[in-house]
Amino acid sequence: MRQPLRIGIAGYGNLGKGVAAAVGQNPDMELHGIFTRRDPASLRVPGDVAPVFGWLELLEHKSDIDVLILCGGSKEDLPRQGPELAAHFSTVDSFDTHARIPEYFAAVDQPARAAGTTSIIAVGWDPGMFSLNRLLGEALLPQGQTYSFWGKGLSQGHSDAVRRVPGVAAGVQYTIPAADAIEAVRSGARPELSTRDKHRRECYVVLAEGADAAEVEQAIVTMPHYFAEYDTTVHFVSEETLRREHGAMPHGGFVIRSGTTGGGYDQVIEYRLELGSNPEFTASVLVAYARAAARLNTQGVIGAQTVLEVPPALLSPTPVEQLRAELL
Amino acid sequence: MRQPLRIGIAGYGNLGKGVAAAVGQNPDMELHGIFTRRDPASLRVPGDVAPVFGWLELLEHKSDIDVLILCGGSKEDLPRQGPELAAHFSTVDSFDTHARIPEYFAAVDQPARAAGTTSIIAVGWDPGMFSLNRLLGEALLPQGQTYSFWGKGLSQGHSDAVRRVPGVAAGVQYTIPAADAIEAVRSGARPELSTRDKHRRECYVVLAEGADAAEVEQAIVTMPHYFAEYDTTVHFVSEETLRREHGAMPHGGFVIRSGTTGGGYDQVIEYRLELGSNPEFTASVLVAYARAAARLNTQGVIGAQTVLEVPPALLSPTPVEQLRAELL
Repeated sequence: MRQPLRIGIAGYGNLGKGVAAAVGQNPDMELHGIFTRRDPASLRVPGDVAPVFGWLELLEHKSDIDVLILCGGSKEDLPRQGPELAAHFSTVDSFDTHARIPEYFAAVDQPARAAGTTSIIAVGWDPGMFSLNRLLGEALLPQGQTYSFWGKGLSQGHSDAVRRVPGVAAGVQYTIPAADAIEAVRSGARPELSTRDKHRRECYVVLAEGADAAEVEQAIVTMPHYFAEYDTTVHFVSEETLRREHGAMPHGGFVIRSGTTGGGYDQVIEYRLELGSNPEFTASVLVAYARAAARLNTQGVIGAQTVLEVPPALLSPTPVEQLRAELL
Repeated sequence: MRQPLRIGIAGYGNLGKGVAAAVGQNPDMELHGIFTRRDPASLRVPGDVAPVFGWLELLEHKSDIDVLILCGGSKEDLPRQGPELAAHFSTVDSFDTHARIPEYFAAVDQPARAAGTTSIIAVGWDPGMFSLNRLLGEALLPQGQTYSFWGKGLSQGHSDAVRRVPGVAAGVQYTIPAADAIEAVRSGARPELSTRDKHRRECYVVLAEGADAAEVEQAIVTMPHYFAEYDTTVHFVSEETLRREHGAMPHGGFVIRSGTTGGGYDQVIEYRLELGSNPEFTASVLVAYARAAARLNTQGVIGAQTVLEVPPALLSPTPVEQLRAELL
């Protein structure tokens, strides 16, 4: 495999910025370029770590990029970009529309196989590391139950929903796992938990001028799908407080597998993430899997792949002999 | 791959018993037989789940066993049995002498390659799941520190050391992780921790008749390598209390990776095990990796392997398409 590994970034939002920062932490990689659909001259890249190119120039850089990391969104961007770019590049992406993963997998797999590229899809923490831990939990403890909790963290989708409510000028939403539900699961009790039991939701909202607080609150807490089936609290704050106290994007959560082995003993496996920055952590996972994508491609493993299928040692820059000696 | 998968057990101590119980929880497997160096007639197998054979009969069953799970000890049994049996069977074992793993890997790899078998070595939780999580932590957060804590759990090696002290009739030792050290690590603080800072040791001892409690205690707490560098507490108990309260083999621990991503955000990954029975959990891991060994062998992947190299999806009885749809 070529050293250093040449990475391209397709899309430069929060995730793309995180990928640029993560590549800088991995000495076996270099950032070849950032590709944007905006005017390249308009992009401010901290430290000028890589040149910025227009989207249409992507194919001209085909022979200079080992893995292209797709940093677009799952709703509008990736369903089109993933299959299109897999026909030219080995790729890694964070496609996270859980219900559509099989369909997206097939759409990427076909052009990747035809082109001889390797595309690892749905990489990040959920889907991603949480999926891996759900798999391991079920395989190691076949008699048991798996619980996923999310938060405390800023949810992008729910924050968007809050901001669409008439009378809301700005706002964010935090998903908060219920401490008593987590303790019950950790104890090995295996409770039946409803959606409402597992998480509550907290919103910090800046009211638009002239808007009625009670009306806005009611519109939020009764919103179907997003808030109606949860205990939701709405806090009204000033624009300045929102900017000062709610500007970061922390997240995290737990996957707990609680099972019983053949002789009747209870066993609990817990995987927990506490992330200071959701996009930066997701970006770090993408970058580690970019290394794996390049290696799989060198080994002749082509087509779509997921975290469930990738041999873990391929994520590390360290030779496997050394990993065995140091980590086992 | 043949269905059901036919498993053999080589060695019937606590681990072998756990494997027999774990195979019973996996409908895609069946237990072909248990092989023992003792008199087969002397073995009591709960529920008579499988016939018992003498050690020398192993090779006669070569064509009836897909994977042989080696349940001997790492000190005396596996260094000889691992290479010898890999020449005839695909195997899985829990070799856990950390410092000797590269040497053992090479000793198993050579006969396995020559015979076309697949042997996954050093499987369990440490080495095993903890190793996997150390690898993932380092790969996802290259700038950071990894902490392993063990316990609360019964340590076999340290219990043996206690029992060798003159004046000790019986006894067990628990390794207990320091709660304040864990909290400091969880907080993202990345402290420098000495051996003494991370764990303490607690012994429950039955005195031999006429032995001097103070002398025994002194001999234990000053024992080099085992206890001298730890805070060790010795409790003297009756034989009956020991049997009643300290007969189980719980264990567990934590692997925590605390890192900082490129933009300066702290990120913490924690993997935690709370095991009601150490040998039953280890056995469950062995059984899941037996499935992977059979599949790797079918794919033509031969020789020695470790948990760092095995694609996770191979551990599950569920087809990978379904895993992608359900777990991602």
